[in-house]
Amino acid sequence: MPTALLVHAHSERDSFVTAMRDRIAETLSASGHELIHSDLYEMGFNPVLSPADFGERGNPDHLVYALEQRHNFNAGTLAPDLVAEIEKVKQADLIVLTFPLFWFGTPAIMKGWFDRVFISGEFYGGKTIYERGGMAGKKASAAFSLGGREDMVGARGIHGPLVHGMLRHLFQGTLGYVGMEVIEPFVAHNIPYQPLEVRRKCLDDLGAYFADLDSKPRIPIPDLANFGPRFEQL
Amino acid sequence: MPTALLVHAHSERDSFVTAMRDRIAETLSASGHELIHSDLYEMGFNPVLSPADFGERGNPDHLVYALEQRHNFNAGTLAPDLVAEIEKVKQADLIVLTFPLFWFGTPAIMKGWFDRVFISGEFYGGKTIYERGGMAGKKASAAFSLGGREDMVGARGIHGPLVHGMLRHLFQGTLGYVGMEVIEPFVAHNIPYQPLEVRRKCLDDLGAYFADLDSKPRIPIPDLANFGPRFEQL
Repeated sequence: MPTALLVHAHSERDSFVTAMRDRIAETLSASGHELIHSDLYEMGFNPVLSPADFGERGNPDHLVYALEQRHNFNAGTLAPDLVAEIEKVKQADLIVLTFPLFWFGTPAIMKGWFDRVFISGEFYGGKTIYERGGMAGKKASAAFSLGGREDMVGARGIHGPLVHGMLRHLFQGTLGYVGMEVIEPFVAHNIPYQPLEVRRKCLDDLGAYFADLDSKPRIPIPDLANFGPRFEQL
Repeated sequence: MPTALLVHAHSERDSFVTAMRDRIAETLSASGHELIHSDLYEMGFNPVLSPADFGERGNPDHLVYALEQRHNFNAGTLAPDLVAEIEKVKQADLIVLTFPLFWFGTPAIMKGWFDRVFISGEFYGGKTIYERGGMAGKKASAAFSLGGREDMVGARGIHGPLVHGMLRHLFQGTLGYVGMEVIEPFVAHNIPYQPLEVRRKCLDDLGAYFADLDSKPRIPIPDLANFGPRFEQL
C-alpha cells in the first residue's frame, strides 16, 4: 500500500486550500494510499532554522548549517521535530504540498519546512542532486491557489511561465533537486474572486486530477548524463 | 540624504553573510546614506502570517489574507511589528537584502517578511504592479551567499540561470512586482569551502560593488506598455 505525505500550509479550517487538501486526501485514500499528514499551522511548525536545531555542535566555534545538519542527524542530536518530519518524508512514496501562493513561493511556514527538514546528507549532497538525490524513487506534486488570473501567466502572460518559470525554484530547485520525480501541480487561479459553483467545479477537477495523478506530465529536471563529475556541461 | 534599509537574515554574528551586511553598511554610509536596519534574527521577527496579524476583521466569517491586510492597515489595526516594518520600507530610498540562499530562495524568516510586510493595497493591487506598484521610485538590491560553485549556474550550468532563472520569483516576482527598480545582486559563490584570503577578497569586491551600485545593471521587468488594461498582451 503506497504512502502519501500531505504537507499543508493554511491557518484556516474553512479555506479553499484546506478544502483542496481534504479532497486530495479523499482521492488518494480511495485509490489505496495510506495517508500521513504534516498540517504545518495545526502543528505550530517552527520554520526558522537556527542553532537551536542542533543538540550538539560538530564545530562549536563557527556554525555552517549544512555541516551541522549532517553532524547532528548522524549523532542523533537533531531537534526532535525535524527527526519526525524527516522520518515522514522517508516513509512516503508520494509527497503532496497544498498552500496558497505568496510572492511566487510557498508561505514562510512551508519554506522553513524545506529549510529545516531537507537536510544536507540525507536529502542531497555535493554530488548527489537531481536523479542522484537522496529522495530518488519518491514522487512529489502540489496543489496551490493564487489570486491572479490564468491569462496573467504562461508564454503570453505578464508574469511569464508559472510552474516552469517563476516557480522553478520549487519544482526543479527543491523537489527535483533532492531526487523526487515531480508531477505537474494543480493550479487554482483567481479563487477569492470566483462564485461558489466555480470553486466547487475546481475541487471536482482537482479530485479528477489526483485520481489519475500518475498519468500527468513530469517537471523536466537536468539530465546528469549531459554533465561531467564536476557538473560541467559535456 | 538618501536612506537605505538593510534587511538581514542570519543567526550568527560571525557569519560571512553578516560580514557582507556590515561591509554594505560601511560602504553605503561612506557614500552618504542614512541607514536603517531590520536584522530579522536579532529582532526575533515572526515570519508566519496568521489571523493574529489583524486586530479586527473586515470579514469575521471568512479570512482572505489580502483583503484583511488592506482593511487592517487602513483601520490602523494591523499588528504593530508589521506597521513598523512597513514604515521602514516607505522611509527607505534603497532596500538591500542580505541572506544565505536556501532552496533557491530566502530563508523562511525573510520569506515571511515579504508575506507579512508587503501588504496588499500599499505595496501592490490588482492593477498596480511592476512599474505601477506601490513602491515605485525606490531601488532594491541584494547580496547573498550560496554553497554551489559559479559554474553550476548560468546558461551552461546544471541549474540554469540563477538571478534571471531560479531566482526570478524574488527579483522580478517580489521586489520588481511592487514597483522597485531592482539592481542586479552581488552573489558570493561556494563560500564555506574557500580559504580566508578568498573570502576577504570577496568582501572587498562586495564593497566596490556597493560603492558604485547605481552603475550596475537592472533586472528587467515586464513593460506594461505591451499589455492592455487586463494585462492581456497587445
